Amino acid sequence: MSTERYNQHILFSARPQGEIEPANFDLIDVPMPSLNTGEVLVEVHYLAVEPAMKGWMEARADYMAPLQIGDVMRGQGAGIVLQSQNPKFPTGTMVSGPLGWRRYLATDGRSIPLRAIPPSASLPAALNVLGITGLTAYFGMLDIGKPQMGSTVLVSGAGGATGSIAGQLARISGARVIGVAGGREKCDWLISDLGFDAAIDYKSENTAQRVLELCPDGLDVYFDNVGGDILDVALNNLAERARVVLCGGISRYNVSGPIAGPVNYFNLVYRRARMEGFIVLDYAERFPEAIEALLQHLDSGELRHRETILQGFEQLPQALINLFSGGNIGKQLVAVNT
Amino acid sequence: MSTERYNQHILFSARPQGEIEPANFDLIDVPMPSLNTGEVLVEVHYLAVEPAMKGWMEARADYMAPLQIGDVMRGQGAGIVLQSQNPKFPTGTMVSGPLGWRRYLATDGRSIPLRAIPPSASLPAALNVLGITGLTAYFGMLDIGKPQMGSTVLVSGAGGATGSIAGQLARISGARVIGVAGGREKCDWLISDLGFDAAIDYKSENTAQRVLELCPDGLDVYFDNVGGDILDVALNNLAERARVVLCGGISRYNVSGPIAGPVNYFNLVYRRARMEGFIVLDYAERFPEAIEALLQHLDSGELRHRETILQGFEQLPQALINLFSGGNIGKQLVAVNT
Repeated sequence: MSTERYNQHILFSARPQGEIEPANFDLIDVPMPSLNTGEVLVEVHYLAVEPAMKGWMEARADYMAPLQIGDVMRGQGAGIVLQSQNPKFPTGTMVSGPLGWRRYLATDGRSIPLRAIPPSASLPAALNVLGITGLTAYFGMLDIGKPQMGSTVLVSGAGGATGSIAGQLARISGARVIGVAGGREKCDWLISDLGFDAAIDYKSENTAQRVLELCPDGLDVYFDNVGGDILDVALNNLAERARVVLCGGISRYNVSGPIAGPVNYFNLVYRRARMEGFIVLDYAERFPEAIEALLQHLDSGELRHRETILQGFEQLPQALINLFSGGNIGKQLVAVNT
Repeated sequence: MSTERYNQHILFSARPQGEIEPANFDLIDVPMPSLNTGEVLVEVHYLAVEPAMKGWMEARADYMAPLQIGDVMRGQGAGIVLQSQNPKFPTGTMVSGPLGWRRYLATDGRSIPLRAIPPSASLPAALNVLGITGLTAYFGMLDIGKPQMGSTVLVSGAGGATGSIAGQLARISGARVIGVAGGREKCDWLISDLGFDAAIDYKSENTAQRVLELCPDGLDVYFDNVGGDILDVALNNLAERARVVLCGGISRYNVSGPIAGPVNYFNLVYRRARMEGFIVLDYAERFPEAIEALLQHLDSGELRHRETILQGFEQLPQALINLFSGGNIGKQLVAVNT
């Protein structure tokens, strides 16, 4: 680490027309923040990117305030408290929160809400399995999907951060879990490292055919991160009273103009099934319960996580763009100030 | 009524290619049935038609055995016990059940399950508000839709049998109810007779615009009988944690080939909402509870029903075809032997 500290921000500078481009952002030099009473200085070490950011950039997602041109790009980050005037976060504390795309920031821990990271956890874990990603997987799979012992569960985008954790949580619940992911490497990881029962490489296999073969009794839970064709395959293979958990729709996010809806939605009637969306922030009151459960699974070794890390603050736009070509395995992070 | 009794059946003779046609059926003369021990002779007075029949005819619906070519056409009916060797159903008992498209039939009441109609009810009511139609509205609206005091509820196909009852049940629950129906006559009926708060004539009004005006805070419940564009309008106007009840999709039933899915399904995520299908037969154990509640609402005058009745057994195919042009207000029945 360089001893010379300097600060930069990345601003959201233009709404994307179609795909996200580096030109949608501005990297600017800014002064190192100075501390007011009650504040801490955070040195950011990791920033996380996620597909939902595209919806924020397009002002399409309306469950939170839209990003305004000129805003510091919104995003989760984790870092270390370098200086502290706040007894809640002494110097050296590992913290995470919606730090934004900044190298350094000063906050009282409320204007930008900080959480102390458990000492047994790592900074990357705090942005992955113990962060919004893990919480999304936890509430989406367990509260909406409700896998039971012996359930058959299909997860799309299973090689990504949320999907890989959601699938493992279903496995821990006693379900049989099949992941859909792009490429052999991701599929091998799901089976060998994460204990998925099977994996379908949608890039080289016929997903509809493979789901039929692997799930002859149908799907009790489908956890959807992608939308599009795979959602339709799942809808065509629902078991009775199945739950379709709508977590994301990454196949939609890069399409401009009208996008086809799920042709097979009417199988929800024939199968007496349910398709349900959720926003993880609604579960804020139950985050502590979930973090505790996730920590226990981590400690027992039942739950694993993985990060794909790009080096360098200026790589943030590219890291975000990479998500949409499936370049990441597990959580895509960018390492900063290291 | 003619004193000369004769029996006829209508057989399902050919799967429809596109729309249902009279040529999909055969009217045949058959002998009057003779009674075996334990059986009753039922004179059918009304037979009901419903949109779901198209799915049975096409073997598209798979929640019950598909109709086979040559089967007596399946359908609910109501009639009078003319002769009885079964103490459960004495002569003169009003009965309903899946009688099929027959003028007369003999059954022990189990091979074709019969239910005695409460003496205070009429035969048409037994096929409408107290039959599968009313039960569908009851469980779909109350169990899946769950309207509350002050909820905003939109019902499509509101001029039809199920929609008109579902909307009234929501109103009785204290909800504000808006119906979508085709034509001024249906809309006036919804408001003046059934106590809907508003009605949208989708044939002469801009449904999207009207939903926006009438439901500025969004829909807590959307009870869908039609699918298609109106489903998409509803998905675009969901309140948080809304429930979309998938009851039917009549706009789909006459389309052959691929049918577009709901483009706006992803609003289920932004609105943390749910879209759920159901099959009323799954609730068989709770039918008595529902019938009792419906009878009470009828007796108190809070719940009204209406039937559109074609005269003559041979009119059954046409009555079924009429459903798809929205010719009926309330339940479409055919009067037989009267």
